[in-house]
Order: sequence, then C-alpha cells, then structure tokens
Amino acid sequence: MFVRPRLDINLSRILENYICFSNAKTNPDTQMGAVVKDNAYGLGDQAVADILYNQGGCRIFFVAHGFEGHRVRSVAPHADIYVLQGPGKEDIKYFAEDNLIPVIASPAQLSFWNREKPNRQKPAIQIETGLNRLGFRLCDIEALSEPERNQFGLVLSHLACADEPAHIMNQKQLDMFQKLTSFFPKAQLSLSASDGFMLGAAYQFDIVRLGAVLYGLNPVPGFSLKSRNVIQVTAPILQIADVYPGDCIGYGADHIVDKPGKIAIVSIGYGDGVFRSFYPKGKVWFESDGQMFGAPMIGRVSMDNLICDVSQIPTDILNKSQYVTLINDYYTADDFGADAGTIGYEVISALGHGIRFIRTYSSKF
Amino acid sequence: MFVRPRLDINLSRILENYICFSNAKTNPDTQMGAVVKDNAYGLGDQAVADILYNQGGCRIFFVAHGFEGHRVRSVAPHADIYVLQGPGKEDIKYFAEDNLIPVIASPAQLSFWNREKPNRQKPAIQIETGLNRLGFRLCDIEALSEPERNQFGLVLSHLACADEPAHIMNQKQLDMFQKLTSFFPKAQLSLSASDGFMLGAAYQFDIVRLGAVLYGLNPVPGFSLKSRNVIQVTAPILQIADVYPGDCIGYGADHIVDKPGKIAIVSIGYGDGVFRSFYPKGKVWFESDGQMFGAPMIGRVSMDNLICDVSQIPTDILNKSQYVTLINDYYTADDFGADAGTIGYEVISALGHGIRFIRTYSSKF
Repeated sequence: MFVRPRLDINLSRILENYICFSNAKTNPDTQMGAVVKDNAYGLGDQAVADILYNQGGCRIFFVAHGFEGHRVRSVAPHADIYVLQGPGKEDIKYFAEDNLIPVIASPAQLSFWNREKPNRQKPAIQIETGLNRLGFRLCDIEALSEPERNQFGLVLSHLACADEPAHIMNQKQLDMFQKLTSFFPKAQLSLSASDGFMLGAAYQFDIVRLGAVLYGLNPVPGFSLKSRNVIQVTAPILQIADVYPGDCIGYGADHIVDKPGKIAIVSIGYGDGVFRSFYPKGKVWFESDGQMFGAPMIGRVSMDNLICDVSQIPTDILNKSQYVTLINDYYTADDFGADAGTIGYEVISALGHGIRFIRTYSSKF
Repeated sequence: MFVRPRLDINLSRILENYICFSNAKTNPDTQMGAVVKDNAYGLGDQAVADILYNQGGCRIFFVAHGFEGHRVRSVAPHADIYVLQGPGKEDIKYFAEDNLIPVIASPAQLSFWNREKPNRQKPAIQIETGLNRLGFRLCDIEALSEPERNQFGLVLSHLACADEPAHIMNQKQLDMFQKLTSFFPKAQLSLSASDGFMLGAAYQFDIVRLGAVLYGLNPVPGFSLKSRNVIQVTAPILQIADVYPGDCIGYGADHIVDKPGKIAIVSIGYGDGVFRSFYPKGKVWFESDGQMFGAPMIGRVSMDNLICDVSQIPTDILNKSQYVTLINDYYTADDFGADAGTIGYEVISALGHGIRFIRTYSSKF
C-alpha cells in the first residue's frame, strides 16, 4: 500500500549522455559546457553538476540566475559558471562571493555590471542573431567602444530553429553570428545548445552548451546520436474499480463510459506536474517481464490523481501491479510531451518541480 | 536592474476569503475546513494554515499526503488534519507522530489502516458517488460489517460538476450521497468543496472543504460571493528592442513580424510555471496610475523568458516600467488559465512550485 509518486533520477546516464555528446564534437578544442539552470531542469542542479564536474571533467556550467550559480559553485569549485540572465540587484552578491561570470544581455545590464564590478571575471556578452530574445543587436554593438568590446571573454548567441536542421533560419543565424562576432576578435564564441551542436562543425565554435541531451531529451528526432532517458516517473495505483455504460469519469463528467470496463485511480496529478493537457491523448503504462501495456487516460487530470482505463490490461498483470509508469525508457519525456501538446523540456521541468515525489538518485532505476 | 520574477502572496486576503465564505454558510453548525494540500496549491501550506488557525479559528485542514499533514501539524497543534489520499507505507509514521486522520479510499487501504492502527483517531471514509475517482462503491460498503462501518467518524465524497450549478450530475450525486451515507448513521458528513458549497444548503452538511476560494479562484463564475485574488506575479523587463517586418520571434520562428514594432523580453518562463500554452492567447500587463495596458505574447514561451509585443504601450509608461504583471486583481489566475487553455487551479499550482521567484508574504502586494 503506497500513496506517493516516485521520481527516480539516473545520474550515471546524465554523465553518460554528457560524455557521449562530448565525444562527438568535431573540433577537439571545442569545450562542452553543461546547462544546469532551473535546478537542472528540475532534476537537481547540485547532484548533476557534482557528477559532471567530478566524473565528467566538465569545467563550464550555465545557469540562468546568480543564486543558481551560488548553488552550483559549492560542488564545482574551479569551474566557469556563466549566468545567462545576466546580473540583477537581487543576486549581485553571488557574483562577488562565487566569482560568477555574467552573460550581459543588454546595454542597460552592461552599465549596471560596470558600475557594480563585483569581480574580475571577463563578462560574456549575449548577441541577438535572429531569435529576437535577449541580446545586443547590431546597433547596440556598434555603439560600444573598442575597449568596451574587448572586455568580453565570450560572445554567445542562441538559435531559434536548430531542432529543424533544414530550416533556413539556421544558416541565416550562423551568418549573422559570424558578422557580429567580428566586432569581438579576442573573445571566445558560443552559438549552440544541444540541437545546434547537431548541425555540425560550423556551429560548434569554442563552447557548446549541452542541456536537453543531458536530460534524455532528443530535440532533433532524426539525429544519429541518441540521448538516453534519465528519469523514471511512477505512481501508485490506489484503487481499481468496475465501470458501466453511462458512468461519468472525472471532473466535468467529461468522459462517459460506453461499455463495461475497469478503471485505475493513480496517485499523481497536476499538482505533481502532470499537465491537465495530458488528457485525453496520454497513456500510463503497466510493465511486466519487459513488456509494456498502455492504459489510456480517461477523465480529466485532478490535482492529486489521474484515472486510466485498464480494461485492456491482462488481469494477472493488473492484479500484481502496485505502480503505473508515466515516463521511462520506453515512453520518454518527449513522448509524454507530444501527447500533452508540448515539448519534453516543459514536461521534465514541471515534474522536476513536484514536491511530493519520493525522489531517488541512483545508477539504475 | 532586476532579473528574478516575483510572487507576492497576500495572506490577509486568504484569511478574508476564508471568513467571507465561512460566514455565508446556511447552517451555523456546518464547519468550514481549509484545503492546504500540495503546499497550499503552491502558496505555502504552513503560512496559510498558520493564519487560518490563529486568526480564522479554522480547526479542520485537508491535505493529500501524510507528510503534508506533518508540515501543517507544526502550526495547527489542535486541529483535525485529514489526509485525502489515505495512508501509505511512505508516510504512515506521520499518522502516529502527528495524530493525522486518514481518509480511507478503498477496501485495501482499510485493511492496511486496521493492520497498522498508528493512532486512535476515527478514520474518515471516502465514498464514490459519481465522480468515479477514489472511494468505496456501494458494493464495497455493503461488504463492510456494522462495526466496521461504525468505526468511521466522517464520510466524505466529491462532486464532479459542482462548477456548473445546473448540471444534472449535482442532484444525482447528492441523491447517491444520501443513499450511501445511510449506511453510516453515526458519522459526520462532507460532500462539498468550494464549488459544491455554492450549490446551497442541501450540499453543505457537517463539513465543507474550502480550497479554491481561499486562493482567489472563482470556479463558479456567476456566484454572488467573489473570492478575492491573493497573488501578484510580476517579472522584470530585461530588454526592449525594435523589430521590423520579416523578423522572426522566438523558438521555431513561430511569429513573423508584419510591421515595425517593439518587443519586451521578460524574465519569466515555463521553468517558473508559465505554461507554453499561454502563447499565443496570453497577455502580460503594464500598470500606470491604476490603468492596465495589455501586451500580447509574441513568440513561444522559453524556459527562462517570454517575449511580448509592446508596440501599443505608451512610450512614457514603457520607459518607466521595470516589471510587467502576469497575475493581479485585474487579470487573475482564472483569466490566465482561460488564456492558457486550462483552469486557475493548475496555474496557481504551477507558478506556486516555481523556485526562482522572489517570494514575499504580506498584507498588501
């Protein structure tokens, strides 16, 4: 009799993914950084940074905020830690305390940084090459003096469509990156995250920022290397019940039963990060002897529970199952995301923020 | 220069909502419980329980899991704390330690409880009246002996369609509740959460479980009483930039600019609980002298950022604004939910689980 959902995180596989993609780089001088922002997409920034630093030799980490850098610093004493959202008043103290490197996103942030100067790190600069998100535009760069430009140790940009290798935007952004980085002849360069890395040598430059592929996501479906899934999400079955034609299932009586069947009530819901949009396309899974049996969602996801149709699950398997699986090697966060109308990144992040999981770190599930 | 999003939680309003709805009960003997499961929908279970217990006189709390009950017990020493998912092996110790009351959801849980018997509380029993979620069905109840039935102190069920007062399910579930509770002549009864409470005297019984309306949600749009919004979510503007026809905005180049305009890049994203589905219908807000100016989402939500079109925001307001507002009294979690294709409950829960907010508790925003 169990009641709490489980999130099992396989750190060895995160390490393995890091090594596997690092080994695939074209130029031996390209350095492979790890993106551990937002608590490593919810999976635990310190646990992830610790294994990549100590066992993977990773010496470059990317976080979004100063306080995240502070958390990572405690396990990665000699790494370069870049803060992608740049410096702000709330977290500026950590730049001094933890010797963090800001990624300056705008002229206003540059003024702020130069006024505060909390450490002697050469800042990085984010430049805008077509995503139209954060970064210096051409006009902003032209407005910088030469000494201002030369203060930067790294120039960074981000691709909008790297998950679609044939998209015309990729070449356009690459051209723009080369044009704009010519203003910074002394700086290192970084254009690509996981998906950009897969576009090949021309996109890899000095530093690649591996995020998605560390966490088992495969943003470019057809790519030759596969990131291995790193999480297993399971939830206890609290009850199995018979249903009859005309029975309504879940909130809003949204599903009406049309033939006799069986449902299982499972102890996980949107309070744990299972999106309500997972219904109606989603499935949960029964495992037996390596075989997977899908049980479709039936009725809306509640805060603490979901309901699935187990009419097609063989009785012996149903009787011996205490848990269902929501994510594993067979049905990954990417698959879950597709069925919920979103992407694997958002799935991991939402589940990763759940506070009710029994959370384990291990080398196996 | 700020970088982190803010979540300001108004505890006084949560108290005010509790008192306002408590005062609206039809029968003076009906007791008003507070649902504080899942960290009070993400807003802080101990802070919420503390104010309701000490200033609202609330003596009944509902949580989902034993460990949540443990957290609430520390601020509500003499309250009845009901655990809605029932007892499980993981959290059973808290039932002894904190004298929690299980809501037994199934015959299997009843066996488990009676075997463990961690305290002398009379357990509650959940019965199934039409939602087809957790609970004893008629056949399960009939299988109980009279002493077994008499061990329960409270019989509880849950409505599927109470947010639609005219829905035929409400009366059907009420009838079923009355039929099934006749098996438990000595127990107290609880059928309704916030929305069921609004269906009137017949649905209120001994205990009402107020959840949604504590947190500023109004699940029944036309109801005479309004729950006041209790949160303000704001996020810093990191950059404002000009855009030109043909420019692509955000991932997937999903939005293409058709006339010259301005965008703002805001430091909040799906890593903080802003659903990707908030694009394209969502808006963020600029406030000036009590007036609200909406800036539509433009381009997909990223993990750390979103982009909005500020072309229509008056220049003086744009220039003086450091933050945009995502949720406040004017544009509530319910409104946000509607634009994101979901409900306010899921919005609060997702944002409430964000770990990067500067989080404040105050009596004003």
